[in-house]
Amino acid sequence: MPSTTGSALKVTVFGQSHSEAIGCVIEGLPSGISLDMDAIRAFMKRRAPGQGPWTTPRKEADEPKILSGLNQDGTTCGAPLAMVIENTNTRSKDYSELKRVPRPGHADFPAWVKWGSAHDIAGGGHFSGRLTAPLCFAGAIALQILEAQGVEVCAHLVRIGKATDTPFSAVRNDAAARQLLRDQIASVRAPGRTLATIDGEAEKAMLGQIDAARRAKDSVGGEIEAVVTGLPAGIGSPMFDGMENILARDLFGIPGVKGLEFGRGFELAQMHGSESNDPFMMEDGQCVPETNNAGGILGGITTGAPLVFRLAMKPTSSIARPQRSVDLVAAEPATLEVHGRHDPCIVTRAVPVVEAVAALATLDAWLSYPADTPFQKK
Amino acid sequence: MPSTTGSALKVTVFGQSHSEAIGCVIEGLPSGISLDMDAIRAFMKRRAPGQGPWTTPRKEADEPKILSGLNQDGTTCGAPLAMVIENTNTRSKDYSELKRVPRPGHADFPAWVKWGSAHDIAGGGHFSGRLTAPLCFAGAIALQILEAQGVEVCAHLVRIGKATDTPFSAVRNDAAARQLLRDQIASVRAPGRTLATIDGEAEKAMLGQIDAARRAKDSVGGEIEAVVTGLPAGIGSPMFDGMENILARDLFGIPGVKGLEFGRGFELAQMHGSESNDPFMMEDGQCVPETNNAGGILGGITTGAPLVFRLAMKPTSSIARPQRSVDLVAAEPATLEVHGRHDPCIVTRAVPVVEAVAALATLDAWLSYPADTPFQKK
Amino acid sequence: MPSTTGSALKVTVFGQSHSEAIGCVIEGLPSGISLDMDAIRAFMKRRAPGQGPWTTPRKEADEPKILSGLNQDGTTCGAPLAMVIENTNTRSKDYSELKRVPRPGHADFPAWVKWGSAHDIAGGGHFSGRLTAPLCFAGAIALQILEAQGVEVCAHLVRIGKATDTPFSAVRNDAAARQLLRDQIASVRAPGRTLATIDGEAEKAMLGQIDAARRAKDSVGGEIEAVVTGLPAGIGSPMFDGMENILARDLFGIPGVKGLEFGRGFELAQMHGSESNDPFMMEDGQCVPETNNAGGILGGITTGAPLVFRLAMKPTSSIARPQRSVDLVAAEPATLEVHGRHDPCIVTRAVPVVEAVAALATLDAWLSYPADTPFQKK
Amino acid sequence: MPSTTGSALKVTVFGQSHSEAIGCVIEGLPSGISLDMDAIRAFMKRRAPGQGPWTTPRKEADEPKILSGLNQDGTTCGAPLAMVIENTNTRSKDYSELKRVPRPGHADFPAWVKWGSAHDIAGGGHFSGRLTAPLCFAGAIALQILEAQGVEVCAHLVRIGKATDTPFSAVRNDAAARQLLRDQIASVRAPGRTLATIDGEAEKAMLGQIDAARRAKDSVGGEIEAVVTGLPAGIGSPMFDGMENILARDLFGIPGVKGLEFGRGFELAQMHGSESNDPFMMEDGQCVPETNNAGGILGGITTGAPLVFRLAMKPTSSIARPQRSVDLVAAEPATLEVHGRHDPCIVTRAVPVVEAVAALATLDAWLSYPADTPFQKK
Repeated sequence: MPSTTGSALKVTVFGQSHSEAIGCVIEGLPSGISLDMDAIRAFMKRRAPGQGPWTTPRKEADEPKILSGLNQDGTTCGAPLAMVIENTNTRSKDYSELKRVPRPGHADFPAWVKWGSAHDIAGGGHFSGRLTAPLCFAGAIALQILEAQGVEVCAHLVRIGKATDTPFSAVRNDAAARQLLRDQIASVRAPGRTLATIDGEAEKAMLGQIDAARRAKDSVGGEIEAVVTGLPAGIGSPMFDGMENILARDLFGIPGVKGLEFGRGFELAQMHGSESNDPFMMEDGQCVPETNNAGGILGGITTGAPLVFRLAMKPTSSIARPQRSVDLVAAEPATLEVHGRHDPCIVTRAVPVVEAVAALATLDAWLSYPADTPFQKK
Repeated sequence: MPSTTGSALKVTVFGQSHSEAIGCVIEGLPSGISLDMDAIRAFMKRRAPGQGPWTTPRKEADEPKILSGLNQDGTTCGAPLAMVIENTNTRSKDYSELKRVPRPGHADFPAWVKWGSAHDIAGGGHFSGRLTAPLCFAGAIALQILEAQGVEVCAHLVRIGKATDTPFSAVRNDAAARQLLRDQIASVRAPGRTLATIDGEAEKAMLGQIDAARRAKDSVGGEIEAVVTGLPAGIGSPMFDGMENILARDLFGIPGVKGLEFGRGFELAQMHGSESNDPFMMEDGQCVPETNNAGGILGGITTGAPLVFRLAMKPTSSIARPQRSVDLVAAEPATLEVHGRHDPCIVTRAVPVVEAVAALATLDAWLSYPADTPFQKK
Repeated sequence: MPSTTGSALKVTVFGQSHSEAIGCVIEGLPSGISLDMDAIRAFMKRRAPGQGPWTTPRKEADEPKILSGLNQDGTTCGAPLAMVIENTNTRSKDYSELKRVPRPGHADFPAWVKWGSAHDIAGGGHFSGRLTAPLCFAGAIALQILEAQGVEVCAHLVRIGKATDTPFSAVRNDAAARQLLRDQIASVRAPGRTLATIDGEAEKAMLGQIDAARRAKDSVGGEIEAVVTGLPAGIGSPMFDGMENILARDLFGIPGVKGLEFGRGFELAQMHGSESNDPFMMEDGQCVPETNNAGGILGGITTGAPLVFRLAMKPTSSIARPQRSVDLVAAEPATLEVHGRHDPCIVTRAVPVVEAVAALATLDAWLSYPADTPFQKK
Repeated sequence: MPSTTGSALKVTVFGQSHSEAIGCVIEGLPSGISLDMDAIRAFMKRRAPGQGPWTTPRKEADEPKILSGLNQDGTTCGAPLAMVIENTNTRSKDYSELKRVPRPGHADFPAWVKWGSAHDIAGGGHFSGRLTAPLCFAGAIALQILEAQGVEVCAHLVRIGKATDTPFSAVRNDAAARQLLRDQIASVRAPGRTLATIDGEAEKAMLGQIDAARRAKDSVGGEIEAVVTGLPAGIGSPMFDGMENILARDLFGIPGVKGLEFGRGFELAQMHGSESNDPFMMEDGQCVPETNNAGGILGGITTGAPLVFRLAMKPTSSIARPQRSVDLVAAEPATLEVHGRHDPCIVTRAVPVVEAVAALATLDAWLSYPADTPFQKK
């Protein structure tokens, strides 16, 4: 069971929901980078549980402790950067029933087939959403490095159940569209936002969807849309190491993600080439795509227009309602009730995780295969 | 520019549209397998050009020549299997204009930024759809190995422009649904089918969409749906090496793919957990999912239900209509007309490519990470 | 600066000499294995400092703390196993002079060129011999898994300076030679041994060499010889993933290793084929090599005879004598005196490290590339 | 059975001795490089068979045919460069006896255990020395790229059996020693040399050793010494991706290599730190090592002094004398006579292979992990 991704910039994630600790090791970070620990903590806090009535009340300080990879002055030294977060709230529960009766929608059953009794089911084990905390830590560092290159990553909730937000203005690529996109990003990040949305009305409607699911002892799914702006053209590679390949591999590592589309995505299936092809124009002496149906990527390589993608996430699997399952030991039908409180909607907390993964994948692509595109430290 | 994918089973693809030859090297094939070359050729022929009025008239024999990896009796010997297909129709054309004036929707522009003049643009270079021919060769071998394990892979056109086919009966997983799925697969493969569809009416409607696009000097996109049946539960891994991660990385390597969803995919974003969770039931003494909203994958690991996924493909980028572009050397706007005849719809020919990639990714996941079985030699 | 090795079994080592902690993450361990923590601690203690007058007096408890990868019952669960060892004795010293004046024989100078001031030089940073502690932890687990398969790994000091030990009886492979080898291994491991030697006289002579070096404020090099017995034939691969390739890559990761030979090694350069070829014989119904000049490996694959290899290690670089160096900031010659006490001979403590690395490399080769066995699940 | 090495610069080798063809795929080459095909052919010719009475008379044109990776003007385009060499002389022989009766010193026996009858034994299959021809092709390209950066790679025969050559003057690093080294390299490459030696007398003595072995129906081993000059300090990495690790992994991929040492190598085991540490001095405003006992590498990273290493190669395994073996099918002792003519000494032809592998490993290390050491195209 490997848990490493990346090529020039590698991240290895470890930990189970109820192990002593969770964490990650990052290899390939440029040296000499001064980490802004406050920014990292603030970023990680965005995915932390317990921030509202609709999220799980488990309280984890989630304080990242850096074990290695820094000089005495706090800058990166080039060596692998290891980080751990202690699990303060472990081994408190009896998961033996779940080993016998797999939870619908969870990995309990395939894990039982694969590992049998040799599998730490506690709290979801290595499949737990808690493992996204180290991803956010690593992503926060990548975001910081990208920011110094003028690159910005922003995700928002574009759908929760039946409630939708305005999509990012990233289908066109003219100056007006780009200004609107900047305003939209500012709106997502406006102080006072409870959820990452552009519209305040959308935020309210989504909170309503989540609250309704919670009161029905149910859960609800959603969609996240993300942009990466400020990237130069020329990052990525055709075939298997393109921007879409790397992003896809990593984004499907976020628990609950079941769909992914770039640019106009599934809409392109209904379009004609004369509509979908993005013409080129001259702007400030540069060639730029006039529209951005391709989502900023052609042939796996960035075009200079913003990267745009959307993710579909399924509803939280753990719900309080009784569900039909099977007693694997007795080999007979069984009814399962999942106790404890769980997030009725994990999509809200996945927003920073998507930003983190997008940053890691983008920086990895940038640092990889340097023969033709050297990365210059700034 | 790397072009390798896979872990225990690696495929390296090489070639450009107008290079001497294209081909692949396959590492990690089990030894002692007798290759059915007729089946391989028949499979490759499904993606070959020139099979109808709507496909590109370029005639390539596309005869695969195996250079290594076989014993004298034609079985695999364990060593890397290298295969080449000669490009019989090369260097016949002047692509210098395309180097100056990038084609909208093509990788010409980002490739020019990345490699400058050191980039073989002829026929799309390494970005060409022709590179899917070696993928089909490798996939045909993987399909043969999987077939011997009782695994079947089938893809069909579920949409071309506005025309749609019946989806596979893979959302439920009871005996009746599985029988229907078998019938649907048989229908897709029925002799006389021009396009890979379940319904004859859908086939006609899709041919209409393609013909209309062709007559309008335009192109049209579509969607492909695929199933992998007969897989045991327990293949794959959580985090970054799960079935979804591996399939996603490889499927986005097929030119034109811009969206991917597993199981109910984007529909899950509008569902509640009580609807989307697949309950478990006992059947013939086995625990099986009763429904298959998850598309046969939970936590990155197969559940025993069929793998199901859908791909969105953009319309062919090369169209005969004049398009707005830029003269990169003169740094001024330019109008581009792409000459030559091109497929008005590449989606039809991508169907076997999707099957090939699905087979390769599945077999790779199956062969990888063997630690949880007893050692082989004792 | 990556620090990962292995294919099916991956080990990522992190930490610097004076970072908060050092440790490792192990991916790909078989699940369901019950770790013998006492055996792991006892093994790690063999490389720990402070065990005699000739070793460095730095006292580190070196208690391994497992953070993840275990079930509640202490067996491996298949998920990545992360382990940390706290550095209790950090940041106590001023290394700023060493940044200006590189120590001869150390990586200070090339690290300064590569990373400039962004390099944690404290205690050797990521180059420190302390990083072999996590390797020993990981190796102790591999040794335990191999032992259950009947495989034994043993290393001894075959040379310290001018003092030599009897070599292992591994050049012949008949029953008598194998019995002698077993006796030699028992002798190396006999209670009361201060150094890992076969002969007691050799032990005394080596202690004399070390003591003489210590009193002369100098250091001394040596050679380690290792065997891996009980391996079946058929493990490994030709070309770049053979037993020699994997072992070599990993063994040169031990600080101070500058030479490596398998079987008769450099002696083979002076031999004829009629002498060096190992004939085959029948023994107990099995084909076995009669002699073992090849060191148990032909074409990168195990032959069933013991693996045998020898390592050359340079003397400890840190010596108390004044040495000629350069002030990198002033760009002028400088004399360097390295303060503090250092091991006059690191070779003695490297013996268990060599066993650890041999076990990891062997187990990795065994677990990798499973295609030539039947699939696990059917 | 994988056959790929390298990280940023990957080489995949394919082919068996008697397959249709052998070849390689190179991924990660910088684009825009104009290949000097005459230089490549001349380099490959140095390892080609049939150049004297002591080499095997098999005549292969060994003409490399480039299938992909080039622009129309012959420069690299960034896409994978594939090359094949046809095997003109295949399937002419009956190897069935060798499948029953394994040749001592060959991989026949472990391959039989691993792959059973599913193994192409013809001519050594994938284990054949013929596979070093594609390595030489790839290495010739790497050499060309390195040469443009002022880097030179040179290997010579330092021993054949009992005959020895003067070693390279690389233990000291002052101006006089470097001038002597340049003269020695010139002498190795002097027109008229039959063998790669510095001294003419050594050449004669070595030819005598080979001829004596040939007449005795025997074979003889040897040692190769190599230098890489002109490398800047700062290339490589500590732990598992250092210069020694990468070189070792790749060099042990050359058939017959059984030992490897860097710098003073095994001599260091008998030295004191005060002798072995290389002091630093100022020279032309630069810090340089005064001596080079470390072989140009400290902590896995280049020091700016020449890389120096020595390889031990075993005698050719195929000899005409009768040898003791086993009939694996009958499970009884058997006597084997290997027919056909074989090189009595493969070491002479391995010299360019060592240069090729050294160039590939060095360039790979240079191109890898670019965050701290960008490679600038010249």
